[in-house]
Amino acid sequence: VFCLNPSDHQHLRYNPLRDTWVLVSAHRMKRPWAGQVEKPPEEHIPRYDPGNPLCPGNTRANGKVNSHYDSTYVFENDFPALQPDAPDPGSDQHPLFQSKAARGVCKVMCFHPWSDVTLPLMKMHEVVKVIDKWAGLVEELGATYPWVQIFENKGAMMGCSNPHPHCQVWASNFLPNEPALSDRCQRSYYQKHGEPMLQQYARQEAERKERVVVESPDWLAVVPYWATWPYQTLLLPRRHVLRITDLTTEEREGLADIMRRLLTKYDNLFEISFPYSMGWHGAPTGPHLKEDNSHWQLHAHYYPPLLRSAMVKKFMVGYEMLAQEQRDLTPEQAAEKLRNLPEEHYKNREN
Amino acid sequence: VFCLNPSDHQHLRYNPLRDTWVLVSAHRMKRPWAGQVEKPPEEHIPRYDPGNPLCPGNTRANGKVNSHYDSTYVFENDFPALQPDAPDPGSDQHPLFQSKAARGVCKVMCFHPWSDVTLPLMKMHEVVKVIDKWAGLVEELGATYPWVQIFENKGAMMGCSNPHPHCQVWASNFLPNEPALSDRCQRSYYQKHGEPMLQQYARQEAERKERVVVESPDWLAVVPYWATWPYQTLLLPRRHVLRITDLTTEEREGLADIMRRLLTKYDNLFEISFPYSMGWHGAPTGPHLKEDNSHWQLHAHYYPPLLRSAMVKKFMVGYEMLAQEQRDLTPEQAAEKLRNLPEEHYKNREN
Ligand SMILES: O=P(O)(O)O[C@H]1O[C@H](CO)[C@@H](O)[C@H](O)[C@H]1O
Ligand SMILES: O=P(O)(O)O[C@H]1O[C@H](CO)[C@@H](O)[C@H](O)[C@H]1O
Repeated sequence: VFCLNPSDHQHLRYNPLRDTWVLVSAHRMKRPWAGQVEKPPEEHIPRYDPGNPLCPGNTRANGKVNSHYDSTYVFENDFPALQPDAPDPGSDQHPLFQSKAARGVCKVMCFHPWSDVTLPLMKMHEVVKVIDKWAGLVEELGATYPWVQIFENKGAMMGCSNPHPHCQVWASNFLPNEPALSDRCQRSYYQKHGEPMLQQYARQEAERKERVVVESPDWLAVVPYWATWPYQTLLLPRRHVLRITDLTTEEREGLADIMRRLLTKYDNLFEISFPYSMGWHGAPTGPHLKEDNSHWQLHAHYYPPLLRSAMVKKFMVGYEMLAQEQRDLTPEQAAEKLRNLPEEHYKNREN
Repeated sequence: VFCLNPSDHQHLRYNPLRDTWVLVSAHRMKRPWAGQVEKPPEEHIPRYDPGNPLCPGNTRANGKVNSHYDSTYVFENDFPALQPDAPDPGSDQHPLFQSKAARGVCKVMCFHPWSDVTLPLMKMHEVVKVIDKWAGLVEELGATYPWVQIFENKGAMMGCSNPHPHCQVWASNFLPNEPALSDRCQRSYYQKHGEPMLQQYARQEAERKERVVVESPDWLAVVPYWATWPYQTLLLPRRHVLRITDLTTEEREGLADIMRRLLTKYDNLFEISFPYSMGWHGAPTGPHLKEDNSHWQLHAHYYPPLLRSAMVKKFMVGYEMLAQEQRDLTPEQAAEKLRNLPEEHYKNREN
């Protein structure tokens, strides 16, 4: 398809979900690295730590006590960025000084009672419980809030301050920038092409194969054609699914399976507990539940920071912040590397 | 102006340069931090290091030898993300697999022959030389390239792999995402309000005072109303100036002065060599030199990563990547803190 050799010659690729371009300069991997190295993730985490506020039965910063939970566990974030009762900032009139009220709730969700497991090391039925709880929270909070953001910051490198397996759920009375942009892009694609963008995309990728990392009858994980982070992936159902709440029991089991396979490959890449931020995007909720959202397709984004090794990440800095994102290997190279990794977790092999 | 107390209640603010919103949740500063701490910047850097490829007279990775420069020094990046001769990727036809040719040049520019100085510790006339060289490079590369991005990654935390004071200049045959967005926003503001957005903004901020960090007859540095990074600043001329090449001799001296004052305050905040990524945005060049770009106003963005101390940065992760940027102190709080810092550099005080 390319007249150029994409791993020798820089080029631009279009991200149809954000209406932006990414600069692919794969030859940059050849430069030596003399910059910052990260501390690799802590590998020996105690199953139970009496001082960890996320463990069952422990007391949190605000004096509240966790239940002796034995599956998932959800509680209100003790330092929420969004609270239900913030007053309206009023209006300044000047177009350069605009503010708006922001209201919402922030929840924390533990995946498992043990601190020393992660999703790829959990049992299938335990991961299904996580997915069911995600759907339950979108159902509950999405009844009124237009946007419910499920996200996981994994690893100290991604600002996560607690090794216990957990994610966060922030619901807001506004549609945040990223989903608003994605909504616009998917809507205009649907209007132009008569098919949901990401359903067509999944079909194309399943045929082309070169960017597929793992697949199953119901699901597909690819390094998207327009990936910005070195090992970024996009996880998609094959069926047209608007929201996580719409997944059938079978699809939830299939999702648990493909998540475990994808995350095992991630961990196997550098043989560490792979850091990332991930999150779900689906059709908006609350007042949008009554609208036609056929242009939407449920999907998860995985954004891992590492580039060269367990200790060298990609810095999205000067040029990326001021001009445009730039990547140092092609999405095809990243996909091939991940695809060829074993599906058995390195920690299980050791035993 | 606010009915709410902005440091207790979250709210949204509008960024007119990017057409996005930022979530301001100042009460989040109250949460304790148990997450990753960074290594503070190296404070003892030798003036000359025989192994440093940026020092005068030294040999670089590709065998080329630096001149014995005694002021600024510009050379081609040995591992350029943009090269002048990349072939055209051809066209795939499918709207989800779009690519484009990317051509350009990447230059490195040393600010000074010594490795142990930074801009705020350099003499006025030495900083003026840096500004003159910036203008010279925009003049030269902007003759043909539509965009010339000057940027500085400072500190290992911002992916900078060499402590020698330097910046980079990447020129491209395309208008990257960020300037393209800024161009659209400034253009539509100008069409609606008949005045360049950022000229009006500078006037407003000079009157309101609450976000001003440093000012002079020709220049103004503020923590913008819509800042996302904790101590982000926006540096603006008061006069309507399209490009850095248009600055008068006096304005260049004024710029050297205000940069030294701003960067001294940054260094004094945590008494370290303050890390940041910064860059210049001005009206596009090359074929755009002949167009009417009255909507543009030259400005520099400073994006520093630190939040709480020399060792705790702000993590723009899960919620920020998937949903929307969120900040933990108000722009007014950040501006006040910076404004109240001394204008004498802590390193000069020590002597
Ligand atoms: O060119 P450098 O300084 O080696 O590299 C640094 O700046 C570049 C431009 O912002 C980034 O793409 C790199 O990730 C970063 O490490
Ligand atoms: O809420 P946490 O996990 O303490 O905080 C982390 O995630 C938040 C949401 O992405 C970010 O705003 C914080 O900067 C980060 O440290």
